[in-house]
Amino acid sequence: MMMKATGNISSTTPFLLPYTKTSDKMSIVSEFNDYRTKMNDKILGEDNKVLKRFFNLDTNAYKDGALDKKTKELLGLVASMVLRCDDCIRYHLGTCFELGVTKAEAYEVFAIANLVGGSICIPHTRRAVEYWEALEAE
Amino acid sequence: MMMKATGNISSTTPFLLPYTKTSDKMSIVSEFNDYRTKMNDKILGEDNKVLKRFFNLDTNAYKDGALDKKTKELLGLVASMVLRCDDCIRYHLGTCFELGVTKAEAYEVFAIANLVGGSICIPHTRRAVEYWEALEAE
Amino acid sequence: MMMKATGNISSTTPFLLPYTKTSDKMSIVSEFNDYRTKMNDKILGEDNKVLKRFFNLDTNAYKDGALDKKTKELLGLVASMVLRCDDCIRYHLGTCFELGVTKAEAYEVFAIANLVGGSICIPHTRRAVEYWEALEAE
Amino acid sequence: MMMKATGNISSTTPFLLPYTKTSDKMSIVSEFNDYRTKMNDKILGEDNKVLKRFFNLDTNAYKDGALDKKTKELLGLVASMVLRCDDCIRYHLGTCFELGVTKAEAYEVFAIANLVGGSICIPHTRRAVEYWEALEAE
Amino acid sequence: MMMKATGNISSTTPFLLPYTKTSDKMSIVSEFNDYRTKMNDKILGEDNKVLKRFFNLDTNAYKDGALDKKTKELLGLVASMVLRCDDCIRYHLGTCFELGVTKAEAYEVFAIANLVGGSICIPHTRRAVEYWEALEAE
Amino acid sequence: MMMKATGNISSTTPFLLPYTKTSDKMSIVSEFNDYRTKMNDKILGEDNKVLKRFFNLDTNAYKDGALDKKTKELLGLVASMVLRCDDCIRYHLGTCFELGVTKAEAYEVFAIANLVGGSICIPHTRRAVEYWEALEAE
Repeated sequence: MMMKATGNISSTTPFLLPYTKTSDKMSIVSEFNDYRTKMNDKILGEDNKVLKRFFNLDTNAYKDGALDKKTKELLGLVASMVLRCDDCIRYHLGTCFELGVTKAEAYEVFAIANLVGGSICIPHTRRAVEYWEALEAE
Repeated sequence: MMMKATGNISSTTPFLLPYTKTSDKMSIVSEFNDYRTKMNDKILGEDNKVLKRFFNLDTNAYKDGALDKKTKELLGLVASMVLRCDDCIRYHLGTCFELGVTKAEAYEVFAIANLVGGSICIPHTRRAVEYWEALEAE
Repeated sequence: MMMKATGNISSTTPFLLPYTKTSDKMSIVSEFNDYRTKMNDKILGEDNKVLKRFFNLDTNAYKDGALDKKTKELLGLVASMVLRCDDCIRYHLGTCFELGVTKAEAYEVFAIANLVGGSICIPHTRRAVEYWEALEAE
Repeated sequence: MMMKATGNISSTTPFLLPYTKTSDKMSIVSEFNDYRTKMNDKILGEDNKVLKRFFNLDTNAYKDGALDKKTKELLGLVASMVLRCDDCIRYHLGTCFELGVTKAEAYEVFAIANLVGGSICIPHTRRAVEYWEALEAE
Repeated sequence: MMMKATGNISSTTPFLLPYTKTSDKMSIVSEFNDYRTKMNDKILGEDNKVLKRFFNLDTNAYKDGALDKKTKELLGLVASMVLRCDDCIRYHLGTCFELGVTKAEAYEVFAIANLVGGSICIPHTRRAVEYWEALEAE
Repeated sequence: MMMKATGNISSTTPFLLPYTKTSDKMSIVSEFNDYRTKMNDKILGEDNKVLKRFFNLDTNAYKDGALDKKTKELLGLVASMVLRCDDCIRYHLGTCFELGVTKAEAYEVFAIANLVGGSICIPHTRRAVEYWEALEAE
């Protein structure tokens, strides 16, 4: 079944709220990762040294150092949440999950983010909770 | 017709611009409210006292006081718009609509938000106008 | 094939990440422009003089002056990216493309935006790159 | 007693926290207004039509309309506070005070701003409270 | 020597860049804390229940829980830095210092903040480094 | 005349609005540059590789490339203004001035910044204008 964006689907697509339905949650994680990898590859494939070095630096910043990796990922998560960047939240949630961060710990990060950043963080918290469930369901 | 996210749909979903098509507008409001309620219930279902109290406080802040409820909802709306939080805008538009705020009043809030917050508020104004029409169509 | 938002689609729509699949990219540009035009017309159709004048002023700001149009569009692009407004980025990418901005130039704007605005601009850069490809494919 | 910035004072000026000492509060209001007027005059004295029209539009947005002036100033105040612009807060506090907004009303605006914008609004609330006292003391 | 703000000083005050001179650094910490305490007392002295409960909640959020106090203060610090709130940074630096956070750890927080939030965080990093030195000098 | 921060001056310092008096303007530029250099040296003197590389990258991003240096500095300026970072604005104003940017060009950057970023950019525009005059007066 092939549908062009200008064809049937585009005239029937429901309101594109930035969340998914529960039944499809299992694929959220891989969809996010696939798109992220594909587009990052394109960006890094261009001859822009500043962007390449910036991406590289971004990866290095979260390695073990005076603070361990897990703490740094929690820092990345709270920073992403107060700056309200859903994709950044998803990325750090994924790494936190892999590093063994518990749900209770994640919720404490959400709580601090909401207090510091205000109720405008609530919609991002909703989507973060949904993504966390998807990570657990994988 | 059941489509898995990793199946047909995911390879044919059109560009997911954060807006809907006119024909489906009647459901924007309930879709937003349903998702909001479902996820808020999950968040409040967890044992995080800070988040619970924060959500509770958020509700109390908009009650009648020295300023009446309607004025407070207008304040919540303009704050949401300059901070560019679509879900927050939708929430306050819904409450404003219920409280009898007129279209002309809503537009004056949009105007102030655009002046204070700049042209980056325009895309949010477009989606706010669309949501307002959905509220009127219910 | 007609699907109501409250019907089948709404229960099967995959996670609505704010990006498209490669095969549908040709329509991103027109979809964005169509929605933008339609909603701007509605906004300008209302009797709110402040918003009308603000929209008008927004158009005038990018005309040739002490700085030429192309430089101004690059300014609009970098401002939109650090403020993380996808629709604003799309708009200025479209105008930049029409004015003959090259891919290498666009990437240098992305690089400055990422440095000034930080890694939270990366997801917007991904979507900007995708939109740029859609402009090239038109 | 004349002290040059590069002379004695500059080597002895204490930590310039963005607030005043209680004993000098009576002059906060006029100092702010004087600087604002002086610099606005310079900006408007230049031949930049976009800025001139923008400043003019900014003034018009707060006139009586579907919403009255007082409500609009409260909207300007809450927007300024969640966007954390001290000078904007001072300006709207001044106008609110002139329009008869009470302290209890101002505090309800602060409360909503803090909830929507988070604890990063607290330092701005402190300075707002100090400015309000200066307005009362005039 | 008493100087009124509207008198000599106000006509000779040097450019009030938001930083101090080295020789006065010992007092930065107490000046900040004194002002913070004084104004918080005023705010809490008013009869605004929402603000009171918000301030109280803000204190509770950083207590030991699933994450320990030190980690939470680091989260508060990075959130304050990406949101570019100097007073919030100062507050969390003070608490971090008391909890035994090392300089190397603080710098890793600064590094993540700069990467996530961009070069606009650099001026805040400068002032954070200056405040940290003042804490060490106490 | 030596005054300790905790001594006479601290009890007489006028309201520290973030701007200077006209008579002292000649020193704004050097004061800013001196503090910036001193603190950057401290930061780079620490053993934090991520921060060092980030600072280095920040310098490289504005070199001639597909876009020339002057255009890139204008991009840095507008990005700094919409993100409302006074120190970043000062830095880029300094470099723009050295590269021969005219006052009329600078004002067109200010105009775009105000439109995109809103009236919250006005106070930063005032201080930018003041700093520009200081650059001209050197």
